[in-house]
This record gives sequence, C-alpha cells and structure tokens, in this order.
Amino acid sequence: MNRLLLAAATVASIATALPAAAQFAKPEQAIKYRQSAMALQANHLGRLFAMANGKVPFEAKVAAEQIEIVAMLNKLQFAAFVDGSDKGDTRAKPEIWSQRDKFNAREAKSHEDVAKLVAAGKTGDFEQIKAAVGAVGQSCKGCHDEFRKE
Amino acid sequence: MNRLLLAAATVASIATALPAAAQFAKPEQAIKYRQSAMALQANHLGRLFAMANGKVPFEAKVAAEQIEIVAMLNKLQFAAFVDGSDKGDTRAKPEIWSQRDKFNAREAKSHEDVAKLVAAGKTGDFEQIKAAVGAVGQSCKGCHDEFRKE
Repeated sequence: MNRLLLAAATVASIATALPAAAQFAKPEQAIKYRQSAMALQANHLGRLFAMANGKVPFEAKVAAEQIEIVAMLNKLQFAAFVDGSDKGDTRAKPEIWSQRDKFNAREAKSHEDVAKLVAAGKTGDFEQIKAAVGAVGQSCKGCHDEFRKE
Repeated sequence: MNRLLLAAATVASIATALPAAAQFAKPEQAIKYRQSAMALQANHLGRLFAMANGKVPFEAKVAAEQIEIVAMLNKLQFAAFVDGSDKGDTRAKPEIWSQRDKFNAREAKSHEDVAKLVAAGKTGDFEQIKAAVGAVGQSCKGCHDEFRKE
C-alpha cells in the first residue's frame, strides 16, 4: 500500500473517533495543509500581480482562471488554524489563538476582498482586476504583518 | 514590503524574460508547488476515503464539495513537473522526464478518473462515489509506484 493510501487509511481509522468535520488527525497536518494552501496562492497571485504590473501581457481569460484558483484556495486555509497547531514548524503567532476575534476579522476581510476579485475577474476589465488584486495583496500583507512571525 | 509581495515582485520582474505561460522562476518553486498541490489533495481525498470506507457518515453535499476541491487541485500539479525540477528536495524519479510519454499517460488517466469522480459526485450516489474514489486512489498509487522514489 502506498503512502497516500496508508495516510488515507490512517486518517480514516482515526476519524472514527472524531466528528465528520474534523480535518486533521495531528497538528502538524494542519500546519502543512495551511502552508500548502498559502504556497499555491502565492504562486497564482504572483501571476495576477505580474499581469497587474504589466510584466506579462494581460489576458482576461487567464486572469479569470487564476482568480478562480485563488478563490478556492482562499477558502481552505483558514480552517487549518486549529487548536494545538501553534507549535511546530510554523510562523503562526500565538495571537491567532489568543486574539481569535481579530484573526477572524482578518479572515472575513480576506474572503471579502477575494469575493471582490472574483467579481472583477468576471468583468474582464483590466483596471478593476488590477485594483482588486492589489486589495487582496494588502489583505494578505495585513494579516501576515499582524499574525506571522518574521 | 512583506515576503509575499516581495516574492510576487520577484516573480514579476523575472517574468519579463519569460513567456506568459511560465509559472516558475526556479525549479525549487515548481517542486514546492507540486508537493503543496499533492498534500492538499491527500487531505481531501482522505476525507472522501473516510466516507467511502464508512469511517465517517456519508453526506452527499460534503462529498461533492471535497470532490470539487480535488478536481481543481488535480489540474494544477502536473504543470509543475517542469524541466530541471528533477533535482532538489523531491522524490520525483528521473523517468518522469526520460519517459515522458508514460508519465503523460498517467496524467491523462488521472484527469480521466477525476472527471469520473466529479460525475459521480453530481449523482450524489454513495456507491458511485465510492467506486470512483477508489479508482482515483488506484490512479494516484499507480503513478507513485512508477514515478516516485521510496
């Protein structure tokens, strides 16, 4: 049995003791998960920034595809800041858990800004997409400045 | 400027020398990208396996959501096996590049099996989803057995 199936079987067997909503058997799985989601987002946002900054030609269809990917990834990451995942190979500050209301407000802002980016993507209008991508970047930066260690 | 924006700016400045389709400035970015996509897929497939195996209650709506995420992630990873990314922190075998036709066939099979999973997800039928999830797992395993180092 390969590692994926083994991991899936492990998840499955542990999951019997957990509610169906529990995603992570161990804190380090949550850390890896959110880091993976953010790494992918950085890549796809990077492509949007490159278009917004005129470094690569703007193509409305390509931008819309990138935005769709960002929107899906953006939904995923926040579920992975689970209790107990403040320790380990992570730059997450303890304030994520000790000031949860503030972090939740960052999450809400992130989703809001990404929703606006999705709307901009549907217009296909360069200036709207550029502004919306910039706002998402600021949203990322705001949360990182407040809740991520250097 | 935070690291994300800095990374985006770096990507953007390098991108001027590349066609718009180029996703990765350096091979290690491609490696991290595909590992991230696969880590997320393993998590979401794990939830589907847990339902398929009866370890958590089957909920058609939840399954469909997980399938949608898997389908998007599955599209992403294969673009990251770019030339030069066979070296570094990777378990990718050199045969991915030296026997590209075989790897491409694995990719095609993966997309085909995931497309069937998407179709099964839309039926909401447990047995169809269970069978399709199993086929996707076999597809993952087949490629890992052939093209991934232990």
